[in-house]
Amino acid sequence: MELPPLSWGIMGAGRVCHDFVQALKSIPHAAKVKTVGCRELERSVEFADQHGIPNRVGSYEDVAKDPEVDICYIGMLHPFHYENAVTALQNGKHVLVEKPSTCSECDTKALVRLAQEKGLFLMEGMWTRFFPAVEKAQELVKSGTIGKVVAVHSDFGFNGGDVANYPDHIFYNLNLGGGGLFYVAPYPVAAAMQFLGPAFPSRIAAAGVKDKLTGVDLSGAISLHFEGKGIASLTYNIEAETPEETIIIGTEGRIKLLSPAHCPTAIEVTTKAIGRGNTTTIRHDFPLPDPPASVDASGGFNYPNSNGFQFEAAAIHKCIRGGRTSSDQYTPDEMLAVMHVLEECRTQLKIDSVE
Amino acid sequence: MELPPLSWGIMGAGRVCHDFVQALKSIPHAAKVKTVGCRELERSVEFADQHGIPNRVGSYEDVAKDPEVDICYIGMLHPFHYENAVTALQNGKHVLVEKPSTCSECDTKALVRLAQEKGLFLMEGMWTRFFPAVEKAQELVKSGTIGKVVAVHSDFGFNGGDVANYPDHIFYNLNLGGGGLFYVAPYPVAAAMQFLGPAFPSRIAAAGVKDKLTGVDLSGAISLHFEGKGIASLTYNIEAETPEETIIIGTEGRIKLLSPAHCPTAIEVTTKAIGRGNTTTIRHDFPLPDPPASVDASGGFNYPNSNGFQFEAAAIHKCIRGGRTSSDQYTPDEMLAVMHVLEECRTQLKIDSVE
Repeated sequence: MELPPLSWGIMGAGRVCHDFVQALKSIPHAAKVKTVGCRELERSVEFADQHGIPNRVGSYEDVAKDPEVDICYIGMLHPFHYENAVTALQNGKHVLVEKPSTCSECDTKALVRLAQEKGLFLMEGMWTRFFPAVEKAQELVKSGTIGKVVAVHSDFGFNGGDVANYPDHIFYNLNLGGGGLFYVAPYPVAAAMQFLGPAFPSRIAAAGVKDKLTGVDLSGAISLHFEGKGIASLTYNIEAETPEETIIIGTEGRIKLLSPAHCPTAIEVTTKAIGRGNTTTIRHDFPLPDPPASVDASGGFNYPNSNGFQFEAAAIHKCIRGGRTSSDQYTPDEMLAVMHVLEECRTQLKIDSVE
Repeated sequence: MELPPLSWGIMGAGRVCHDFVQALKSIPHAAKVKTVGCRELERSVEFADQHGIPNRVGSYEDVAKDPEVDICYIGMLHPFHYENAVTALQNGKHVLVEKPSTCSECDTKALVRLAQEKGLFLMEGMWTRFFPAVEKAQELVKSGTIGKVVAVHSDFGFNGGDVANYPDHIFYNLNLGGGGLFYVAPYPVAAAMQFLGPAFPSRIAAAGVKDKLTGVDLSGAISLHFEGKGIASLTYNIEAETPEETIIIGTEGRIKLLSPAHCPTAIEVTTKAIGRGNTTTIRHDFPLPDPPASVDASGGFNYPNSNGFQFEAAAIHKCIRGGRTSSDQYTPDEMLAVMHVLEECRTQLKIDSVE
């Protein structure tokens, strides 16, 4: 017997919320959007009409209070994640909060504690984990295909300048969480955490570039050491497009999540024989399913591979319908460890104020 | 009129010296090997016979004293580079010293000063710089093909365990300079220096793994920030084979030195249009010339693309015959900056003693 779909309330009406709602249309057995709300009622109305959402409200709080909603998708700018996730939990809703979960380790810890107290499901939206390509990589690593994992290299960067109006774009607004560390770095940090964690790294060492005018960080290189495991070499960039790959390096081979590695549809598995360069590489493809016609009709997607949000949503459906308050594929401990790394990097990069 | 070849004296008779001498056979117009010497006369004799070298001596010093030698190739283990390079310079010889130039910034500084005082040529053997593929990358960067360079990602790692007897192999001998930082990291650090330097980075942040039994460092991730330029994200590894690529990332595209990036024969040039992922990639190949029959007859090469040593040697020939004491393609300032980074990483990784 198929379990009833989760009823989603969408907090926010921006580009990510749009893509998330579009992806849910591919899994009607698991997800139904009941409500959308943001601070301007007319934007909620417009969003609701576009996507056929029955309830539309003029505040985030009203989403949390809607009795028809099982789970809130927290999709507004990250400086507002914490307060709205708290509101959702306080109102008895499960929560999927976009990356980064909050803007500080302390806030994320409080969120995790509150969800536990309330017995509610909580996850940061690290949708990467739920792509079949990533699940395959995880499975190969666990089965020992590449030996012992000793390093993870991961990068994510794009040229913010070529799509945004500098310095007015949100990317460059320090007070609204601008900068690459919080917008982009969660992905490579979470990639390292997946294959070398979950744990707080024993060493975190970062170097980065700050924008002289706006004070936001434009790029960073993060070196991590996980005790007894290995190293991670991570970069993020909002000045330039990087290859965007995640490479998991083991003593007997390596696995590459091909670009776009934060939402990949293909991996390359390289296994090695004795001697440098004696390797064999096999590629595995996991193409995204075609979205239903209603997705095209309501404006398609804003970002690459957004149809892949459905994998995350379907997994959450299983967790919640199975009585779970977290997912094994991205646990509250990982969410905390990722935030710990981001916060330490922010300190090292001195991103607290405009200079 | 062709200038007379340089007469080389080879200090050392190991695997790298073998490959270097083999490569010189491809450029008889520029190089002639006159003398080989190491601490055991019989190994010098064997090496000389194998390669048809007229003079063979039983000490490094005797190579430096040979009046027929113009330039010494310092090719023994790196803990002995400094003293032997000094001996060579003191005896009026030009010097090409293998990587790392010495084991400390202070020693490298002294070496540079001594060469300047004596008016002699000195270079660390950063042969990567002289490969046509790298010269092409440099030229494209200078011409603005990829916009402003904002990041360099470079990795170099191999599985030392699959070719060496742990823990007896020299890689694991802390007292003889073992560990990845000095054996492997000079390459990625020099790659960053080429495209973001030459300068001392304004921030150096490293994390790495040390071997519990031998105390050597097995792997490391190095994050650098070059003031006013950008970031470098570098890794080295002697536990596992990494992709071994160097990627130069600019605001309008990127250039990848394909594996093996420390001695590459191909690059990929990616230029971008507005919008993420809107890129075009073109590959350029620069195959190595075939070595003469004498190279096969005397045992071929030990390492990948060693025939490429000829590019470095030919460039040095031009410098010295042109009255130069350094090469613009890898200057004493860069040699110093690279050693500064290595030494700072050694401090951060606490690689001074067996724990």
